[in-house]
Amino acid sequence: MHSSITVREVGLRDGLQIHPTFMPTADKLAWIAAEAAAGVREIEVTSYVPPRLIPQFADAAEVTEGALRIPGLTVSALIPNLRGAQRGLELGVHKLNFVMSVSQTHNLKNVRREREDSVADFRAIVALARQQPEGRRPKVCAGLSTALGCSYEGRIAVDDVVRYAVLLAGAGADEIMVADTVGYADPALVRRVFKAVQAEVGHLPIAAHFHDTRGTGLANVSAALDCGITLFDASLAGLGGCPFAPGASGNIVMEDLCFMLESMGLDTGVNLQELIAVRERITQALPDIAMQGALARAGLPRGFAPASAMPAV
Amino acid sequence: MHSSITVREVGLRDGLQIHPTFMPTADKLAWIAAEAAAGVREIEVTSYVPPRLIPQFADAAEVTEGALRIPGLTVSALIPNLRGAQRGLELGVHKLNFVMSVSQTHNLKNVRREREDSVADFRAIVALARQQPEGRRPKVCAGLSTALGCSYEGRIAVDDVVRYAVLLAGAGADEIMVADTVGYADPALVRRVFKAVQAEVGHLPIAAHFHDTRGTGLANVSAALDCGITLFDASLAGLGGCPFAPGASGNIVMEDLCFMLESMGLDTGVNLQELIAVRERITQALPDIAMQGALARAGLPRGFAPASAMPAV
Repeated sequence: MHSSITVREVGLRDGLQIHPTFMPTADKLAWIAAEAAAGVREIEVTSYVPPRLIPQFADAAEVTEGALRIPGLTVSALIPNLRGAQRGLELGVHKLNFVMSVSQTHNLKNVRREREDSVADFRAIVALARQQPEGRRPKVCAGLSTALGCSYEGRIAVDDVVRYAVLLAGAGADEIMVADTVGYADPALVRRVFKAVQAEVGHLPIAAHFHDTRGTGLANVSAALDCGITLFDASLAGLGGCPFAPGASGNIVMEDLCFMLESMGLDTGVNLQELIAVRERITQALPDIAMQGALARAGLPRGFAPASAMPAV
Repeated sequence: MHSSITVREVGLRDGLQIHPTFMPTADKLAWIAAEAAAGVREIEVTSYVPPRLIPQFADAAEVTEGALRIPGLTVSALIPNLRGAQRGLELGVHKLNFVMSVSQTHNLKNVRREREDSVADFRAIVALARQQPEGRRPKVCAGLSTALGCSYEGRIAVDDVVRYAVLLAGAGADEIMVADTVGYADPALVRRVFKAVQAEVGHLPIAAHFHDTRGTGLANVSAALDCGITLFDASLAGLGGCPFAPGASGNIVMEDLCFMLESMGLDTGVNLQELIAVRERITQALPDIAMQGALARAGLPRGFAPASAMPAV
């Protein structure tokens, strides 16, 4: 039997949200379909924010509805607040991804809320989701942004990360996501933070969301794997960038992540050649978007055997 | 007390050897001096190969002599064979870096030698070095190229890596260097190989030389750190590339490596801002060379504290 890892595509949300050019809806849906066909089983397809704030997500409904027609795909979307959750429920999305910042300053600047108020918002979202009939009830995921560093506050106390993980778990989260929003983390910090979070809310699935802003993204994945983490966010071609560092790299690169995992014998379910081919769709739709990624330039190693082809151990 | 790591610059050799434009000798020496001033304590400054094979190293003598005038810097150079060692001894270099390939095919193609013959060559080099008077005797380092994968043979048996590490140690190596020449490694493989090598030749210093060809370079460093490795090769701006994958990234990026290590509380002795500034010298001397590196684009995190500034633990 092989260990299994779930990789989740967040490029359609985290990657596109800072890109000024609107990606046509048909291109978004083609990207989602192609990546699902390559074996990615969970995709954050959009964000339920008002289009006047982020015009890129003006087609959130069409994208969600289209993605939901793909068999076997878990469709998630970012929700900034209760109104966003309401939209997600109406659309029948599988998973609502709520996010708050562990950094007080970042939370205030980003959503104009004190952190305790964000926890209260999340509690209301869970209550709303639980009113849904069983078959239409989405999973509700609670994300902790800036958990490994903040562009305003610098280092974040591990105790604060744990405190909000516990509060969100207590509020009814089905899953906790811990994010290095601005790419400050190193493997030692990752181990400290994830072990501390697991010690308190390890009864829930815990996901890792790393940015590769300073080159440590995959090293941080490796450290999180050592802690037993099996859920990882990434974006194809590393789309994402960082609003605080123009030109800097963004989310960890999905295809590089999958290469590393498969090479380690960890089954992602993803076909690497098919995944690399999906990059072309993005380039064609958005010729001006910055594409990262080492595997796509170098190609697979000679004789490379993905995890699923390795002898069972 | 802080843990201490030695980072070694190999860009002047591994980075420049595949670059078609000659970097003027004065620029090479300025690069070496600036990086030494930033705190890098060991630099592989050139290769003692015949200039007709690699014109980039036509100034090997001047570069070596210039580097040897920098106080406190350990000056090393690559030696392909006994003749190269002889040149190194004449020049008074501190360290001779011999390299052979664990892959039989790669060794045959690269130096037209069976692997056992390369071990014999190394034995003769050690004998030659030991004829030097005490104060002029260089360290002799034995490098195992393609130890984590080969563009001809694919995966390399761990037993083979250990076998040649043992033979080279027995031949008198002062240090063993294990190299992922073409960027095939993942953290799991790194742990297997380095633990196996340490188990047999752990009485010697063991260095890691990783390429970032497929994005796993710093993850592999993190895995090697877990094994207790404290010697790492890297090149400023990730110079190096891969002859088998045009456009692909090369050695791990020195400044990203130092950022990760310092962030983890591991003291490199390197000033990160000064190190980043050295990149400018390369760009000015070789405007056409491909520069990698995430830290230089993103900048240091807010409130970043290098290892030397952290409270002692």
